[in-house]
Amino acid sequence: MGSSFGQLFRLSTWGESHGGGVGVVVDGCPPRIPLCEADLQVDLDRRRPGQSEVTTPRNEADRAEILSGTFEGLTLGTPIAVLVRNQDHRPEAYSEMAEKFRPSHADYTYQAKYGIRNWQGGGRSSARETIGRVAAAAIAKKVIAAQFAPELEILPYVESIGALRANVDTSRVTREMIESNIVRTGDPDFVEPMIDLIKRVRGEGNSVGGVVACVIRNVPVGLGMPVFDRLEADLAKGMLSLPATKGFEIGSGFAGTEMTGREHNDAFRMKEGRVRTLTNRSGGVQGGISNGEDLFFRVAFKPTATIMTEQDTVSNAFEDTELKGRGRHDACVLPRAVPMVEAMAALVLVDHMLRQRALCGGGTVCP
Amino acid sequence: MGSSFGQLFRLSTWGESHGGGVGVVVDGCPPRIPLCEADLQVDLDRRRPGQSEVTTPRNEADRAEILSGTFEGLTLGTPIAVLVRNQDHRPEAYSEMAEKFRPSHADYTYQAKYGIRNWQGGGRSSARETIGRVAAAAIAKKVIAAQFAPELEILPYVESIGALRANVDTSRVTREMIESNIVRTGDPDFVEPMIDLIKRVRGEGNSVGGVVACVIRNVPVGLGMPVFDRLEADLAKGMLSLPATKGFEIGSGFAGTEMTGREHNDAFRMKEGRVRTLTNRSGGVQGGISNGEDLFFRVAFKPTATIMTEQDTVSNAFEDTELKGRGRHDACVLPRAVPMVEAMAALVLVDHMLRQRALCGGGTVCP
Amino acid sequence: MGSSFGQLFRLSTWGESHGGGVGVVVDGCPPRIPLCEADLQVDLDRRRPGQSEVTTPRNEADRAEILSGTFEGLTLGTPIAVLVRNQDHRPEAYSEMAEKFRPSHADYTYQAKYGIRNWQGGGRSSARETIGRVAAAAIAKKVIAAQFAPELEILPYVESIGALRANVDTSRVTREMIESNIVRTGDPDFVEPMIDLIKRVRGEGNSVGGVVACVIRNVPVGLGMPVFDRLEADLAKGMLSLPATKGFEIGSGFAGTEMTGREHNDAFRMKEGRVRTLTNRSGGVQGGISNGEDLFFRVAFKPTATIMTEQDTVSNAFEDTELKGRGRHDACVLPRAVPMVEAMAALVLVDHMLRQRALCGGGTVCP
Amino acid sequence: MGSSFGQLFRLSTWGESHGGGVGVVVDGCPPRIPLCEADLQVDLDRRRPGQSEVTTPRNEADRAEILSGTFEGLTLGTPIAVLVRNQDHRPEAYSEMAEKFRPSHADYTYQAKYGIRNWQGGGRSSARETIGRVAAAAIAKKVIAAQFAPELEILPYVESIGALRANVDTSRVTREMIESNIVRTGDPDFVEPMIDLIKRVRGEGNSVGGVVACVIRNVPVGLGMPVFDRLEADLAKGMLSLPATKGFEIGSGFAGTEMTGREHNDAFRMKEGRVRTLTNRSGGVQGGISNGEDLFFRVAFKPTATIMTEQDTVSNAFEDTELKGRGRHDACVLPRAVPMVEAMAALVLVDHMLRQRALCGGGTVCP
Repeated sequence: MGSSFGQLFRLSTWGESHGGGVGVVVDGCPPRIPLCEADLQVDLDRRRPGQSEVTTPRNEADRAEILSGTFEGLTLGTPIAVLVRNQDHRPEAYSEMAEKFRPSHADYTYQAKYGIRNWQGGGRSSARETIGRVAAAAIAKKVIAAQFAPELEILPYVESIGALRANVDTSRVTREMIESNIVRTGDPDFVEPMIDLIKRVRGEGNSVGGVVACVIRNVPVGLGMPVFDRLEADLAKGMLSLPATKGFEIGSGFAGTEMTGREHNDAFRMKEGRVRTLTNRSGGVQGGISNGEDLFFRVAFKPTATIMTEQDTVSNAFEDTELKGRGRHDACVLPRAVPMVEAMAALVLVDHMLRQRALCGGGTVCP
Repeated sequence: MGSSFGQLFRLSTWGESHGGGVGVVVDGCPPRIPLCEADLQVDLDRRRPGQSEVTTPRNEADRAEILSGTFEGLTLGTPIAVLVRNQDHRPEAYSEMAEKFRPSHADYTYQAKYGIRNWQGGGRSSARETIGRVAAAAIAKKVIAAQFAPELEILPYVESIGALRANVDTSRVTREMIESNIVRTGDPDFVEPMIDLIKRVRGEGNSVGGVVACVIRNVPVGLGMPVFDRLEADLAKGMLSLPATKGFEIGSGFAGTEMTGREHNDAFRMKEGRVRTLTNRSGGVQGGISNGEDLFFRVAFKPTATIMTEQDTVSNAFEDTELKGRGRHDACVLPRAVPMVEAMAALVLVDHMLRQRALCGGGTVCP
Repeated sequence: MGSSFGQLFRLSTWGESHGGGVGVVVDGCPPRIPLCEADLQVDLDRRRPGQSEVTTPRNEADRAEILSGTFEGLTLGTPIAVLVRNQDHRPEAYSEMAEKFRPSHADYTYQAKYGIRNWQGGGRSSARETIGRVAAAAIAKKVIAAQFAPELEILPYVESIGALRANVDTSRVTREMIESNIVRTGDPDFVEPMIDLIKRVRGEGNSVGGVVACVIRNVPVGLGMPVFDRLEADLAKGMLSLPATKGFEIGSGFAGTEMTGREHNDAFRMKEGRVRTLTNRSGGVQGGISNGEDLFFRVAFKPTATIMTEQDTVSNAFEDTELKGRGRHDACVLPRAVPMVEAMAALVLVDHMLRQRALCGGGTVCP
Repeated sequence: MGSSFGQLFRLSTWGESHGGGVGVVVDGCPPRIPLCEADLQVDLDRRRPGQSEVTTPRNEADRAEILSGTFEGLTLGTPIAVLVRNQDHRPEAYSEMAEKFRPSHADYTYQAKYGIRNWQGGGRSSARETIGRVAAAAIAKKVIAAQFAPELEILPYVESIGALRANVDTSRVTREMIESNIVRTGDPDFVEPMIDLIKRVRGEGNSVGGVVACVIRNVPVGLGMPVFDRLEADLAKGMLSLPATKGFEIGSGFAGTEMTGREHNDAFRMKEGRVRTLTNRSGGVQGGISNGEDLFFRVAFKPTATIMTEQDTVSNAFEDTELKGRGRHDACVLPRAVPMVEAMAALVLVDHMLRQRALCGGGTVCP
């Protein structure tokens, strides 16, 4: 229970950090979408460890094999299974963790919940689990482009690392700007300071958190369901399901709570025959449903829990002890979090597109 | 689609602001739980309009009738249907809104999505929909107390209204402190200033937002599922499904992103035979699973969209126009948001308790 | 758990035989479908007790009230709640059943499962629960006609009562033929014998079973999902979820097991530009998916469990005892089972129509 | 959509007959259940092709690899992924089927639904898909034995092939009797005649159908949910989701429709301190819930559609043509259907056991 996501475009991820591999089954992908393994690899490469000097040195090629659901380069409408074998695992680095719970990690809670845990590399709580999400989202993006919104662009970027907060013009940021630097920030002036900060905390055996912001352009009007499956509710769930996340806000977010209604409301005006808002404090959703403006939200990532300095903790035998981290870890998850945020956004959107097509037949009756 | 919540303790709400009524069906409530209508009424009274001088004057008694699922004062294990009739509706106050979309409200997005809307009182997007949630949560709290965690306490309170931020000691706040004042803040010094602020903005035909914080004590260890149904992911979804919410953070939240791992990690120590953490930046969850510490999270509410001053907007005929709000509305939703946040927290918790009992048989193997 | 049906057109029924009432919430009905209470009443009247001399004399008008989800005569796309109050209940007729379990009824199993039961009138196991299904299906049929298959006709009829088996030409049977007689058989020659049989067994304080057959014409090609949600699997589930059912077969059914492949296969031939089969032993489904031929299936209903003669049973105190039925019951459920079978068929079909529209966008690429 | 089954013990199968392989992901398996690949292989070997002279000669070892969800021989509580590679595929045997639709097979309906199909070996409609179900059910049976009903026995057997109907005493049949003969019938006198019949029809390029009966002993009281998820409804769905099935009946089934209530009702009597019925026409369920008697049901399998003689059909270009089957196929699916029926029964039972534990905490309050 808990490893599936989506109502209609439904993915089920599986796999532990150190086991036979990780993967995903996607049930509900429409038929006749062009799909090959290279389509997945682009995003898996953006997610994979060892991709740059600011990510963990664990060296995984993360080569995806599509086991089912396609035929002669097209999706069949049947479940698509994707497998990525684990290769560079070093369980010996975790032998001490077999005996002790890492502070602020999932070791203790898994043990308490299940009475058992795979202590090698965090097992299921490892960020390797997100491989399945990224692969599924690569498929989702092809569906969106082919059948629903060819112009839709999902653009997450690193807004801050620690106290370094970039100045990004969300209306102008491009994928090229973001992907051209290894921290994936949208502000060229902050690339070097951010790289330096990550290297410095890593040098100290420490870690650091940050914020990923995400703008999504050319979103169709009418996505999201009233009440429980509001678009922002599903986005919040998707984002808070990513490892190390501690917060989500959309549009004006927490800052908006200090405004009055008069300051905060987004006035409507007709522009080029479409209903538009003059401002976008709503972040693209009103009443849980997209209004055609840019979706804009922010996600908080805590500093990596596994650090290389001695910490107080408790052993499997429930005695006080100390633990010093080993293994290969990101000192800052933010650069690799960008494709993960993108993946969850794509998965939420494609699911709501299919739901809207089921319920209302596609299209909108408003300009 | 979108009006149900929960995997095992599953509620389906229905109803519009101005129609036959609103209500809920709860499927999955365990049998033999004592339950009568008075159990629901306590919380419905905390949620209802017209309860104090800082809430909307719409006068609804919100009397709940239990239509099914109980027998001789006990739950049967079968669906519990609850009905609340609408009484004090005044659709005439909404006649202008039949023709125009209220800025930052759901009018336009519902029309665009469905090609139709009940323009009276916001229809399904009205806060009246939360009656069903509050009634279901009253049942959930009885289940939690009877079968899972008798000492568990859910304590949401108003932390801020506009720029007024109360100083609340989360380890000491009590239900009495919160419920003894009509704004439901946890800091006596802020009661009068907050009341004054609400009255002032209302007097100006304006509105104001704020933050509800929530602490939950005596949470069992082991609630929450790895990966997608992490406890914080389901809490985030539940909170962002409430009307007017724009953000959610748990534990250290956005502020925690500026810390290093060494500062942020919660060291483990044995205390009175139990595994405890010395700090609680995790907010009570690690790896998506409760660790037995207090759950602590915050929810951002935007200023009410319906204000009594002229605003630019667009008509049903898609022409630019102006609109001045009418009808009876909260100038600040925060005092009534407190029982709503409590409801969603209880609904998430009971569902995960049932899921844990299904999967692991109840109890935890760790101290 | 267990009181909801459908993935996209999702109904949740609630209510006991002797309580505040019974009803249903339908979530997932498309917007802008004309709908009023009279639309539901037609089918509720075909289902209601007391409708003829061969049904139970319990006199319930079964007037449906639509509480939400419509506006000015059209569906809103939001949940539709329907309420039917119980009126002619006589719990005193059940006082002996409070102490004893009726043989082959749900009394003992409910008690064993839940540790509690509403012994008045069978509680949730009463056929009154099907009111919610029939109301929801009336909505489903309007959706099918408006958006998917205007010519589709669902024609269930009584094929046999006890050993009396009617000869019905499924290709010619009409709704008029079925509804023109109170047993709802499709063969005029069997109307009187069937009425006589029901009256005779009722006179003896006994009961009798039978078979409902159902033909569905003008079914779109392509409904049903491979593997678990095959169209016949969902039909089987729907039919076996009706009270008193013991069997389901589609197309050639059990008789077909005695044939060879050469005899059984349905040859394809082009006819008037469409792919057709020359025979229909498949019953309209191949590989779990409709092929455009008539759907044809049969449902077995056992004799009513509540009979008016003394039977051996066990008491609440778990001692051997005897029980003689009281209360008002159908001596034969078949005439009233016809609208119930029709309801479940409509609910399965509309759900698969919405699912097909979500996945494949509507329409078929084959003639 | 449509490739998942179960609410709590949830499996998702994937894979085509001729592709990278087939497999399953099981989400919701309780932790700390001993599990290794050999546990799965026993049942996969009973299902695999080429196992005897009466099954298809396609030679697949069907070796299962567990990719995740176990650690040191125990389940982790996280998703269990199982992979079986396809090996002996011969797509060239299907080249004619690329151009023509096999009568009574899924070729046409898949093409009509999706606009594409994997024509090699039936793609997703192949019986190879059931590998995932059999593997998942092997896990389910370990869960049932370890946590719910150690004495529970699921005993399906071949009751008839064509017109040959075995005489089996359901109260005495044993797994040894069934598994000791290659047709898996429960009556030694029918083994040779059944083998001869299968060989004869195969020799004629023809095929034959039959019935699998299933008795399940030592079923806990209280499994099954009222209304839609009645135990027999979920069994019916599970069975009708198997390839080539056309009917399901439980207890007295279709034959019971000819009885009166007085003949049909199962009288209750106390026996050895337990509530028992003197007869079992109910087939072990009353009101949708197990009553502790043996579950007994029957499943109809049609003759295999792929036969080796010329048949009328239609081409991809929608023109009349003829087709003679090729490839390797079972002339009678019954012997291999036995482990498939067993699998679906186990999957339905384990799911309802978990649901009952969630809702009622386990155990029954009745003797």
